[in-house]
Amino acid sequence: MNSDIIKSLLIENDTKILYVIMDGLGGLPRKKGGQTELETAKTPVMDQMATDGILGQLDPIGYGITPGSGPAHLALFGYDPVKNNVGRGILSALGVDFPVTGRDVCARLNFCTLDEKGNVTDRRAGRIATDINEHLCKKLLDSITLSDGIEFFLRTVSEHRALLVLRGDNLGGHISDTDSQQTGVPPLEAKGADTDSERTARYVNEFLSKAREVLKDEHPANFILARGFAKHEPLPTMKDRYGLRAAAIAQYPMYRGLARLVGMDVLPKPETFDAMFEQLKDHYDKYDFFFIHFKKTDSCGEDGNFDGKAGIIEQVDAWVKKLDELNPEVVLITGDHSTPAVMKSHSWHPVPALLHCNNGRNRIDATSSFGETSCAQGGLGRMPMQYIIRECLAAAGRLQKFGA
Amino acid sequence: MNSDIIKSLLIENDTKILYVIMDGLGGLPRKKGGQTELETAKTPVMDQMATDGILGQLDPIGYGITPGSGPAHLALFGYDPVKNNVGRGILSALGVDFPVTGRDVCARLNFCTLDEKGNVTDRRAGRIATDINEHLCKKLLDSITLSDGIEFFLRTVSEHRALLVLRGDNLGGHISDTDSQQTGVPPLEAKGADTDSERTARYVNEFLSKAREVLKDEHPANFILARGFAKHEPLPTMKDRYGLRAAAIAQYPMYRGLARLVGMDVLPKPETFDAMFEQLKDHYDKYDFFFIHFKKTDSCGEDGNFDGKAGIIEQVDAWVKKLDELNPEVVLITGDHSTPAVMKSHSWHPVPALLHCNNGRNRIDATSSFGETSCAQGGLGRMPMQYIIRECLAAAGRLQKFGA
Repeated sequence: MNSDIIKSLLIENDTKILYVIMDGLGGLPRKKGGQTELETAKTPVMDQMATDGILGQLDPIGYGITPGSGPAHLALFGYDPVKNNVGRGILSALGVDFPVTGRDVCARLNFCTLDEKGNVTDRRAGRIATDINEHLCKKLLDSITLSDGIEFFLRTVSEHRALLVLRGDNLGGHISDTDSQQTGVPPLEAKGADTDSERTARYVNEFLSKAREVLKDEHPANFILARGFAKHEPLPTMKDRYGLRAAAIAQYPMYRGLARLVGMDVLPKPETFDAMFEQLKDHYDKYDFFFIHFKKTDSCGEDGNFDGKAGIIEQVDAWVKKLDELNPEVVLITGDHSTPAVMKSHSWHPVPALLHCNNGRNRIDATSSFGETSCAQGGLGRMPMQYIIRECLAAAGRLQKFGA
Repeated sequence: MNSDIIKSLLIENDTKILYVIMDGLGGLPRKKGGQTELETAKTPVMDQMATDGILGQLDPIGYGITPGSGPAHLALFGYDPVKNNVGRGILSALGVDFPVTGRDVCARLNFCTLDEKGNVTDRRAGRIATDINEHLCKKLLDSITLSDGIEFFLRTVSEHRALLVLRGDNLGGHISDTDSQQTGVPPLEAKGADTDSERTARYVNEFLSKAREVLKDEHPANFILARGFAKHEPLPTMKDRYGLRAAAIAQYPMYRGLARLVGMDVLPKPETFDAMFEQLKDHYDKYDFFFIHFKKTDSCGEDGNFDGKAGIIEQVDAWVKKLDELNPEVVLITGDHSTPAVMKSHSWHPVPALLHCNNGRNRIDATSSFGETSCAQGGLGRMPMQYIIRECLAAAGRLQKFGA
């Protein structure tokens, strides 16, 4: 059902909706018949909320699809994650807090190693140290000028990874990767899929050709590969779509950037979980919706650190207890996707979710703990993640009746 | 999935499908951790059917959307409730058993009070008594003639509420409300959104201008406000879509009208629950599908009468026991939407549903009582209401295999 219907039903009121997002929350048992990270963690606060609230399972993109962080967060925010897929280049820019404009085309760069024949021998240039990356980026910036007044920007991400941004009028964003993802072959030429993108591709190739000259005596990083070209396409804001004044409380640039993409105000970077709560309290009256993002569940999952992930979940449980002081109408506790420690990667499994209202307006179900197994028996059922915001809006009394 | 596929799969046979609909059935617990109206009610008959049958949760319109009666019933009957949204004016006409034709544009009227400057001071004219409304409608009908032979009809609904119908050739139905929903301002002019509707708007304004003259010395009801203009758009019938000869057994005009909209035969108004069963028995051989509508669960919910609603559910449980005599192949017991007594209004919560077949063709699940919590664990899962008719058709052996 289309988002215009939701828009036509919106009511403004003073209720608060809080999203408590543990990145990569969903997990798997360490061994057959065992418990997941969330089930292993001692979470008395969230278990009580599960008793009083309702559980379910959210599919970020669709059955069997493992999401990246970009589409998973857009689904959480109520946006169709397939129609609004944000390009890798844009996500790279968000990840380093680069202020992207509508005139920018962004791409992810890898420093790489070429042999004397010009074939790629290492797509990551031996994972060079970040400070070497910074040195090379500066050298490229100082040495290269593009024709026709096209500007370019470079930002070190980490190790061999960097961001390239071209800025100019009418630059198309549909450009093929120059990284063939193979070794033993030369890098590819950039090609544009339409007239405006062909123009951009010419500047990309000009940049790469000049970079090859600048880097020719470096070792091992004597060239660069580019992929994930993308132009910034502004999205309708949370205010436009849901009438919500929305704020983000997040420590990591990527998630701050994703929040900015949908028009949230992004509060200053908090250094600790305590600081995140102080921010929430200080800004509580100014916003209707808060996106509160905890990153380390995902990092532990990616590292295969099962106990570490469970430990972070316990810290968040203690953090959630503090919400009693604010007594928000609607709290959603979930993740953006699953990152089972046993897989050391994102996964396609639906994400456990807990919806709690302080006004008696959620159904209750038979569950009394927050975990993957209980969520599979929860009253919300298994549902597409992009619709969970509608359940939150309804519970907050922000949607009127459809039809007479 | 499109309804044409269903049509291509239809098989005729002698099975019966019964819809036992308790209006506004879904509820909420009176207090945290408590039971809903349906869970509080003693329902031994439906509990046994839950044991032998399968439960689920139905979303009438979509996640978070609170439905009006019109779209909720269309979803029950298998129609897309958003694409087939029925205008308020048409529902008002159905609600007073007005026989709408394809040449009619209908609107909901309120008698209102204007001050000497022509500003609205009371949008409901102090909720005048119904007999005053009847008197004023008669006066307007007797005094006003519209130009170009356009006919008009007025029907008292109750208190300050009435129905206006304009009848003529090529009248458009896209006309703006004259009720601004505010006091202290004058009523609005009706405006048409297209050429045919502009023409209708001129007759509406002519009617209102003449009504102002007729009512000028009345008090407090010295004018009328119109909203929800709608033209009758005929829908494909249940016979067209599902090959079902369908009959409605319902006490209230609105639901009789909704049944008529989808081409059901509407049996004469039954005065009692017993009379409803007698009608079912008397017409059992002539139809394939019966829509049996119990209204008072919703009325009690709207009144905040938790125990009253539970009591009606118990009466319906006893009524369902009588079905043993007929032994119908497929019985669906559900509501059109939720009306929790604690909210005193319709709500967005999914509706508990029980599907029972006498032929062993429903799956069973682990549930053994009919209630919101058990439905949340039911084998039908949580599903869009508009597809439940397909489960019924299949269980009745009325759908053949798709593809080879």
